[in-house]
Amino acid sequence: MIIMKSEATKEEVASVVKEIKKFGLKADVSRGEFRTVIGLIGDERRADFSHFATLPGVKEAFMVESPYKLISKEYGKRFDGEGERRQIRVGDVTIGGDELAIIAGPCTVEGKSQLFRIAEEVKKAGAQILRGGIFKPRSSVHSFQGLGANGREGAEEALRWLYEAGQRFEMPVVTEVRGEAQIDLVASYADIIQVGARNMYNQDLLASVARAGKPVFFKRHFGAGIDEFLSFAEYMAAEGNKDIILCERGILPLGKGKNYTRYTLDLSAIPAIQKETYLPVVADPSHATGRRDLIFNMSCAAVAAGASGLMIEAHYDPSEAMVDGMQMITPDELKEVISACRKIHKLVAAKNEAKVVNG
Amino acid sequence: MIIMKSEATKEEVASVVKEIKKFGLKADVSRGEFRTVIGLIGDERRADFSHFATLPGVKEAFMVESPYKLISKEYGKRFDGEGERRQIRVGDVTIGGDELAIIAGPCTVEGKSQLFRIAEEVKKAGAQILRGGIFKPRSSVHSFQGLGANGREGAEEALRWLYEAGQRFEMPVVTEVRGEAQIDLVASYADIIQVGARNMYNQDLLASVARAGKPVFFKRHFGAGIDEFLSFAEYMAAEGNKDIILCERGILPLGKGKNYTRYTLDLSAIPAIQKETYLPVVADPSHATGRRDLIFNMSCAAVAAGASGLMIEAHYDPSEAMVDGMQMITPDELKEVISACRKIHKLVAAKNEAKVVNG
Amino acid sequence: MIIMKSEATKEEVASVVKEIKKFGLKADVSRGEFRTVIGLIGDERRADFSHFATLPGVKEAFMVESPYKLISKEYGKRFDGEGERRQIRVGDVTIGGDELAIIAGPCTVEGKSQLFRIAEEVKKAGAQILRGGIFKPRSSVHSFQGLGANGREGAEEALRWLYEAGQRFEMPVVTEVRGEAQIDLVASYADIIQVGARNMYNQDLLASVARAGKPVFFKRHFGAGIDEFLSFAEYMAAEGNKDIILCERGILPLGKGKNYTRYTLDLSAIPAIQKETYLPVVADPSHATGRRDLIFNMSCAAVAAGASGLMIEAHYDPSEAMVDGMQMITPDELKEVISACRKIHKLVAAKNEAKVVNG
Amino acid sequence: MIIMKSEATKEEVASVVKEIKKFGLKADVSRGEFRTVIGLIGDERRADFSHFATLPGVKEAFMVESPYKLISKEYGKRFDGEGERRQIRVGDVTIGGDELAIIAGPCTVEGKSQLFRIAEEVKKAGAQILRGGIFKPRSSVHSFQGLGANGREGAEEALRWLYEAGQRFEMPVVTEVRGEAQIDLVASYADIIQVGARNMYNQDLLASVARAGKPVFFKRHFGAGIDEFLSFAEYMAAEGNKDIILCERGILPLGKGKNYTRYTLDLSAIPAIQKETYLPVVADPSHATGRRDLIFNMSCAAVAAGASGLMIEAHYDPSEAMVDGMQMITPDELKEVISACRKIHKLVAAKNEAKVVNG
Repeated sequence: MIIMKSEATKEEVASVVKEIKKFGLKADVSRGEFRTVIGLIGDERRADFSHFATLPGVKEAFMVESPYKLISKEYGKRFDGEGERRQIRVGDVTIGGDELAIIAGPCTVEGKSQLFRIAEEVKKAGAQILRGGIFKPRSSVHSFQGLGANGREGAEEALRWLYEAGQRFEMPVVTEVRGEAQIDLVASYADIIQVGARNMYNQDLLASVARAGKPVFFKRHFGAGIDEFLSFAEYMAAEGNKDIILCERGILPLGKGKNYTRYTLDLSAIPAIQKETYLPVVADPSHATGRRDLIFNMSCAAVAAGASGLMIEAHYDPSEAMVDGMQMITPDELKEVISACRKIHKLVAAKNEAKVVNG
Repeated sequence: MIIMKSEATKEEVASVVKEIKKFGLKADVSRGEFRTVIGLIGDERRADFSHFATLPGVKEAFMVESPYKLISKEYGKRFDGEGERRQIRVGDVTIGGDELAIIAGPCTVEGKSQLFRIAEEVKKAGAQILRGGIFKPRSSVHSFQGLGANGREGAEEALRWLYEAGQRFEMPVVTEVRGEAQIDLVASYADIIQVGARNMYNQDLLASVARAGKPVFFKRHFGAGIDEFLSFAEYMAAEGNKDIILCERGILPLGKGKNYTRYTLDLSAIPAIQKETYLPVVADPSHATGRRDLIFNMSCAAVAAGASGLMIEAHYDPSEAMVDGMQMITPDELKEVISACRKIHKLVAAKNEAKVVNG
Repeated sequence: MIIMKSEATKEEVASVVKEIKKFGLKADVSRGEFRTVIGLIGDERRADFSHFATLPGVKEAFMVESPYKLISKEYGKRFDGEGERRQIRVGDVTIGGDELAIIAGPCTVEGKSQLFRIAEEVKKAGAQILRGGIFKPRSSVHSFQGLGANGREGAEEALRWLYEAGQRFEMPVVTEVRGEAQIDLVASYADIIQVGARNMYNQDLLASVARAGKPVFFKRHFGAGIDEFLSFAEYMAAEGNKDIILCERGILPLGKGKNYTRYTLDLSAIPAIQKETYLPVVADPSHATGRRDLIFNMSCAAVAAGASGLMIEAHYDPSEAMVDGMQMITPDELKEVISACRKIHKLVAAKNEAKVVNG
Repeated sequence: MIIMKSEATKEEVASVVKEIKKFGLKADVSRGEFRTVIGLIGDERRADFSHFATLPGVKEAFMVESPYKLISKEYGKRFDGEGERRQIRVGDVTIGGDELAIIAGPCTVEGKSQLFRIAEEVKKAGAQILRGGIFKPRSSVHSFQGLGANGREGAEEALRWLYEAGQRFEMPVVTEVRGEAQIDLVASYADIIQVGARNMYNQDLLASVARAGKPVFFKRHFGAGIDEFLSFAEYMAAEGNKDIILCERGILPLGKGKNYTRYTLDLSAIPAIQKETYLPVVADPSHATGRRDLIFNMSCAAVAAGASGLMIEAHYDPSEAMVDGMQMITPDELKEVISACRKIHKLVAAKNEAKVVNG
């Protein structure tokens, strides 16, 4: 891997590529907004990295085994001044900071009054960021696809409601893009752009979303190993956008017999990921369990495992929700969750700080 | 679910939607090229389907539980004149017909001479359709992404080679699109458009690919159940494109210990899928196993399980391939595979015919 | 299902069986120590349960769909006077009570001094029950199988050390039986008998262990769904032994790529199981993660999820341990874990009590 | 690993153990019937194997990484004169030979007439070995557990029927042992002893079964990786019994959504296993799929994948079977399966032989 200086010229890049070819290797040039990274294709052991390091325009040259380099803790500390945890600021809220970040709202924006009422109530309950789905990914073409399916105007109207609810109740807002065609529109209204679990492997979408320049809320696919999850986050980092909030939202449950939860919330992935990368991890117990009666325990557990935040679906009347009513909690229940989780977060953080000091 | 007549007017559709709302339900209108399908959102049991069936423009109204209806065997027989297996014709080749369809070629198009040499050799070995990757989905941004990454011109040049190789050696060609932006370009050169496993859940891409009007080679995601796989194929059928070739290419292997194969080729999925839908299923033992030494056995096994075809990666010198050399076989080995598989296909088909006659 | 009165005679049982056969069904008579349960085999809907209920010796007759009935919360409340959580008392310790129960000790008993030193140190750190493996289940016949492999005398010596360490440091002790031949010996020294994950499906062993009359520490197999786990616990309950401590110790990790943890600790299983049965659930983060650096977070998470206790492997010098050193923590680390977990347990329990009061 | 000569004395073994300890390692002595194997515990790299090789009684000393050594193809060829495939002879039948071996019969022995009728019919259909379950492993204590549950006399009567049916229709018989207490009884009537999938990890049972001296039919657990499966087969080989027939019977299906098959028949495991060990592999499509309508295709596929045999459940009237009727086929269907499979077996074997000659 060769990292070019930010001021490197095209000619310098071309000249490095030429040198790479002399070793019988090919070069894969990734031009991000802030830097150009040149990957070596083929058996890197043939190459002389100390030679590459002396070429004009080259910041650094080294052999990499990991598919996620730019977001790794080690790399972040050496080259980007990253600490243990990157603090991603959105409005007045920080994800990855001292305080637990709470994202809440309806699964799906169904209308203005529904959204405003929920926004008001989750704000009172202690939420800091508002969520609401407009472009809904659905397993069945015969199911409700969200207001985003109502043409560009319908989608824009719903996005405007979300923006206005955020303004009114002083919360940054997050919503999902499902395809490249929606990025510009979503980016003009949302503070954070969500990439859903089913799009985790969609590298073209990831690169485009990253280039929109807003923080990205990036959900792990339910069939993805940790290394894949981080490797695809790297696609965004390679575009120069490192404001990536990772989200654990459940993996495939064990295959046989009745499923007691919709997915398996993979909580040991949280501390395991936090050892690998400085990017903060948030948990989504709502989609993971699909069960309202497990949200309290699994929220507490996620925070105890080291999550920097939670994304929780809430509704004043879960039975009335058009999508996923089974997994939503009321604002009152949310308040209780937030209260317990903030205490647990402090308990766990205290230990982590102690560790940092000692270690 | 309400199926409108093909000649139904917009007003008739609007009027049906109005009626649906009277039952406290919402309507999700999917306008395909050939028909409009109206999905009911909410508790369908509240609705009076016999009433809907009498409305002007309505072809049929019924309650659906399955998320894949249009591609189901039962529906195909009743409304579309589909038989046991849809025969998808591409040039002189039929997928789903009496003869086993063999798709072969390199994992990745690396250059014109590489492609032409492989095309010539797989043709001689008995292949009928040529494959070659240009837009490569890769786990790592630091890996070679295919010639499609070389800007529009580089991509178009590689696509032209593929087209010319197909013309020269009389084989239709198939290649993958990875994002919506590539569809027009790919559709103007390829006879069949492939949607890779990682894009199986990408409903926006599926709808756009379907609208390109060419047969689609649709790979199952390695974490997807059969019902999900068929539900996402339904997204394409809902756009009026039923020339969908399903491809089983391996699911997540068991989680612990060393993986002896890259994925687990889920062969019982093949006959299980064939009981559900008239769409033909093809197997890809190359990506599933990732092992050249297992291709012969797993190809034979896939055909014995009822596959209508095979997609196999081949290279005159597997050790030289830039991507996935471990799983490629030589043209000579391919010939041997095809010979055994054609015999097994006849053996198995004979039984299935006997069954149809008796049953 | 027909539950006989505890004083029912053999003749009464025989007569019920005869009646069952009149309905074209077969009977499966399970004679537990305290009750006889007669299962109906075949289509139960043919039978007249109100008739059975009137037969002499019959306590109750009803149709069952669940494979775990005797340990279900509903049944426990109706017939056995069970509350939300069964409190299993062992010496001065209660599992399932107000206080979190901590089981700690070495993975494997290696010698008397090793065991005594660890026992002393974990006791000081706050542990209440001592664990130590003597009959070790191992994947490879070529690995160390524990001191239990040293013939009956060697095994008995190790068991005696365990017993003495328990006496000396005032902790009940738990150790595993791997085969039926070891039950009597183990039962004569241990306060709690452990059945390991790999023996979860071993119904003959379960029945025999249950009959030994001591509390059983029952680990979930890494491939078992929750319903299977509970169904096999039912094998022990059917023998009249309901002092069963369920243990979640990790399920198969996702199949592809590098495993960052040995197994996936399935924490949402804990509250899900606690909705089904009154039996208490304990978590084992040591075997689940296989990583010392994740024990703190995953212990806290397990307790937050609702665990009634923890089983944690500890060693004064993890690097010296013969088996599983990678996953052991030191007594100092254990103390820190226990301190945080006791606080989280109180926080979470407070909410659960509030719930019970309100609900 | 140190292999002692078969004539090595106890003193020689003790002396080797002493030498091992000098290197700071421990020794695990496995005394099989035919050989003693000494495993080294600890970091083997500390040891001097060339020194061990010179000690009296030592046949061979080397470092091993694989947990399955004795059954590996490489070891078999070097020390035991094993070829590509071990041929296990039972009566007149050979498993692992030129001809496909067909094992068929009812899931469960329900009575003498049922068994005899099925035996007669499967024999006519072409089966060579008769199966019939007597000690049934069941998920629920409330389900029928087989005639083996009717006390020793009931069990022995059923075993005698099985033996007599085998004699009458000239087929060796195979039945399952579920616990150690049943081994002697089963071994006195059965030609092959089956260890079910749920007991795959039961190392105490495996050692005892192996010592009974009869061929073992060994089923892979549905959650076991290939390396675990072979490692536990090694437990039997370490007792000197290498007449082990491996059986692939399906692994856990993918976790979400409806299961179209009960398990996932892991057919690529068959050729993968055959590259590792000389032991023959048989497939059980009945338990794997749980669907009668998939048996034909999956039997053919298993043989195409390289299986040396098949175990298939059959019943003259599947709807009448007490257990697993959904997955049984009729003798007529069995005949059709056998006919197609024998042809495929020849086709595939021809290629393998060609390979051996060339390779």
